Amino acid sequence: MNLDALRRDVLKANLELIRRGLVIYTFGNASGISREQGLVVIKPSGVPFDELTPENMVVTDLDGRVVEGKLRPSSDLDTHIVLYQAFPNIGGVVHTHARYATAWAQSGREIPCFGTTHADYYHGCVPITDPLSAEEIGGEYEENTGHAIVRRFDGMDPASAPGVLVRSHGPFTWGKTATKAAQNAVLLEEIAAIAYQTVVLNPEAVAIPKALHDRHFLRKHGAGATYGQPTLK
Amino acid sequence: MNLDALRRDVLKANLELIRRGLVIYTFGNASGISREQGLVVIKPSGVPFDELTPENMVVTDLDGRVVEGKLRPSSDLDTHIVLYQAFPNIGGVVHTHARYATAWAQSGREIPCFGTTHADYYHGCVPITDPLSAEEIGGEYEENTGHAIVRRFDGMDPASAPGVLVRSHGPFTWGKTATKAAQNAVLLEEIAAIAYQTVVLNPEAVAIPKALHDRHFLRKHGAGATYGQPTLK
Amino acid sequence: MNLDALRRDVLKANLELIRRGLVIYTFGNASGISREQGLVVIKPSGVPFDELTPENMVVTDLDGRVVEGKLRPSSDLDTHIVLYQAFPNIGGVVHTHARYATAWAQSGREIPCFGTTHADYYHGCVPITDPLSAEEIGGEYEENTGHAIVRRFDGMDPASAPGVLVRSHGPFTWGKTATKAAQNAVLLEEIAAIAYQTVVLNPEAVAIPKALHDRHFLRKHGAGATYGQPTLK
Amino acid sequence: MNLDALRRDVLKANLELIRRGLVIYTFGNASGISREQGLVVIKPSGVPFDELTPENMVVTDLDGRVVEGKLRPSSDLDTHIVLYQAFPNIGGVVHTHARYATAWAQSGREIPCFGTTHADYYHGCVPITDPLSAEEIGGEYEENTGHAIVRRFDGMDPASAPGVLVRSHGPFTWGKTATKAAQNAVLLEEIAAIAYQTVVLNPEAVAIPKALHDRHFLRKHGAGATYGQPTLK
Repeated sequence: MNLDALRRDVLKANLELIRRGLVIYTFGNASGISREQGLVVIKPSGVPFDELTPENMVVTDLDGRVVEGKLRPSSDLDTHIVLYQAFPNIGGVVHTHARYATAWAQSGREIPCFGTTHADYYHGCVPITDPLSAEEIGGEYEENTGHAIVRRFDGMDPASAPGVLVRSHGPFTWGKTATKAAQNAVLLEEIAAIAYQTVVLNPEAVAIPKALHDRHFLRKHGAGATYGQPTLK
Repeated sequence: MNLDALRRDVLKANLELIRRGLVIYTFGNASGISREQGLVVIKPSGVPFDELTPENMVVTDLDGRVVEGKLRPSSDLDTHIVLYQAFPNIGGVVHTHARYATAWAQSGREIPCFGTTHADYYHGCVPITDPLSAEEIGGEYEENTGHAIVRRFDGMDPASAPGVLVRSHGPFTWGKTATKAAQNAVLLEEIAAIAYQTVVLNPEAVAIPKALHDRHFLRKHGAGATYGQPTLK
Repeated sequence: MNLDALRRDVLKANLELIRRGLVIYTFGNASGISREQGLVVIKPSGVPFDELTPENMVVTDLDGRVVEGKLRPSSDLDTHIVLYQAFPNIGGVVHTHARYATAWAQSGREIPCFGTTHADYYHGCVPITDPLSAEEIGGEYEENTGHAIVRRFDGMDPASAPGVLVRSHGPFTWGKTATKAAQNAVLLEEIAAIAYQTVVLNPEAVAIPKALHDRHFLRKHGAGATYGQPTLK
Repeated sequence: MNLDALRRDVLKANLELIRRGLVIYTFGNASGISREQGLVVIKPSGVPFDELTPENMVVTDLDGRVVEGKLRPSSDLDTHIVLYQAFPNIGGVVHTHARYATAWAQSGREIPCFGTTHADYYHGCVPITDPLSAEEIGGEYEENTGHAIVRRFDGMDPASAPGVLVRSHGPFTWGKTATKAAQNAVLLEEIAAIAYQTVVLNPEAVAIPKALHDRHFLRKHGAGATYGQPTLK
């Protein structure tokens, strides 16, 4: 994907967040990466979604230096960059304050896999990060937020859980492209909403059996996947 | 209904699910059956709802073999087929992951009849299936999901409960046509939402008396029905 | 208001219910009365809201006999008629299965006045009817539903509480016109939703003091009202 | 801002409330002030939002006397005026009965800072006022509502908390302009909704650490702010 196509994909991802009701005003941000050029395209900071164009997306290098664009990048840029560096197979990152996923993040609870909607996308719970220390908060806060996510994924494949809850903050999601990362943000909000209602109906609800979890996840992911159309993959 | 009309009805049912907010992206599926021809028309697997046309609906026989169309059928096809075989009077089947009905399915609770909105459509609770065994999950999973539904309806008339919660999964609904099945999915979500709020307000709430339940159900169903217009039935 | 104007007002009231998301498909109904002519205009039974026109509204007398129109009247007609006979100052009646008000009705709880939003419209709780007996259900059920409402308002002014929860069923509201009755249905749903969230946040919440309740209700109602524009009243 | 621009800004603020679903019918009101002229522009009382124009906004002096316009001002005018007098740096005030913020107000609970969405806008909890006495309710009620807010902010900078819950009533918010005050009403509803879901998921949830709270609030406010674009501030 060349830089122009990447700008359009990042804009599309940001607009998907608005269209699905996941963000208001200037909340949240989406980015995409060109691995070949070592460049990240990200939403400008504090600009309302309805003023976004492919042109006012900000291009930075992997040290966070702006290389194209007159606007400041999203204040969460350093979190995105840490994720791109740690997860070499992802092409897009999205952050929102969507209501249900953020409530789980604020409650300090990971989301157990209560059903197949969840199992179709996460091969385990939706994980939550540990709290940052006062030093981490006082230092390179956004970068340290990224490190907290990466620590939580120690020994895990990011493709087996395309998102995370940053404790006391909100969700980050990722995918092969910025648009896929945005779709994963929408799916996480759906999973979070249904899980919220599940624990209200049954506070003792537990995760589904591994056999059912595997059956659904592997129907959609990996070499043996049978879901969808071969030509659309 | 000829095959072209059936394709259009199945498309209309799928679009109703999107329009009412019951499904996003590629979640859920609707199908219809031509009993005369022994053919099922169903949504293709993994295709977004806004790309659906009458032409890309998939036609299969009752063994699940594609007889028309270039796309793979919905991965839940085998569940639909089991229902068509066990319930000879239904003409359409719908599956969604709508939030409230899915939360009840995930919570492992059937929905008691708390009021007349429910009684108008279900002559009893909204039933929930038993868990599948590991063998059933590891084997013909989608087909076995259908068998679990049919077992739950042992001795029941499917017209007296036009839907079911598949435990840890989500709702399936049916009706005389695909469109009716989709409307029953919408009605089930409404019933599930009101029941959710009812148990939050009153965790001790119990089902309504049989006299009231019968009065409402029979006002709309059966030989003595007085609801609606004779010419519209 | 002549009969043509009444037909249009009743249609408008029915459409307001759809527009505000209070009803789906054929749920609910609105009616209006011409006191001079002793005629009621009401939604036809089982006709989807988007097929309603001023012409297909049904006109009946106060015995429930159709005097104009080819369609059957709403199955709840007899409830409306009892209310028109018992409450001589109302000109419109509305019934819905809106989610929050219906959940309160199903939970068997009246809605306490938790705040000024409620106090602006109800000079007390939102009342709930007593259960109907098996005989009342088995007999003239819809008429008996009306009688249960009227019994609950014994000694009360219907203008001091423009709606009621019919236990295990849902809300009925009224007003000077069908459109006002529909607006009161919308307001009741808003009050019911906020009260639901209030008891979730604070299960021990109690009704506001009488001084505050009176201050708000009387600011909007009665001879001393100061709210709004004199010319709009 | 001259008076014409102020009228348009106040209209825009009122329309933002409708557009975001915070108000229905004639609920709520927005105002703005011209500090130079000592004039307040406010929504007329009891006029539906879709009939508002810049011309029918009401202009009053700081004693609440109408100086331009034929309509009565919002019944909450006196609350707005008290806030303008006590908080010299604000330019707009908004009042709504939005569902979640009103439920918190009705529950008698301030909103603890459970996460960064909240910390971005409030440098502490969302405060709640003490109850009014019967004398305050029976006297200049609307003015006394303003005094209750000002008492709650004794020793606090209104810029560090751009809104408040009036107990048993609903939220008031403010900002540099009427439009900013309306945006703060939208943000408060978002914060209130997420906090509601947080306490449902975790009734023992506590406020975030001060280090994290400061980091977020000060990223957006004050001399050291790094969020957004310098030219947009």
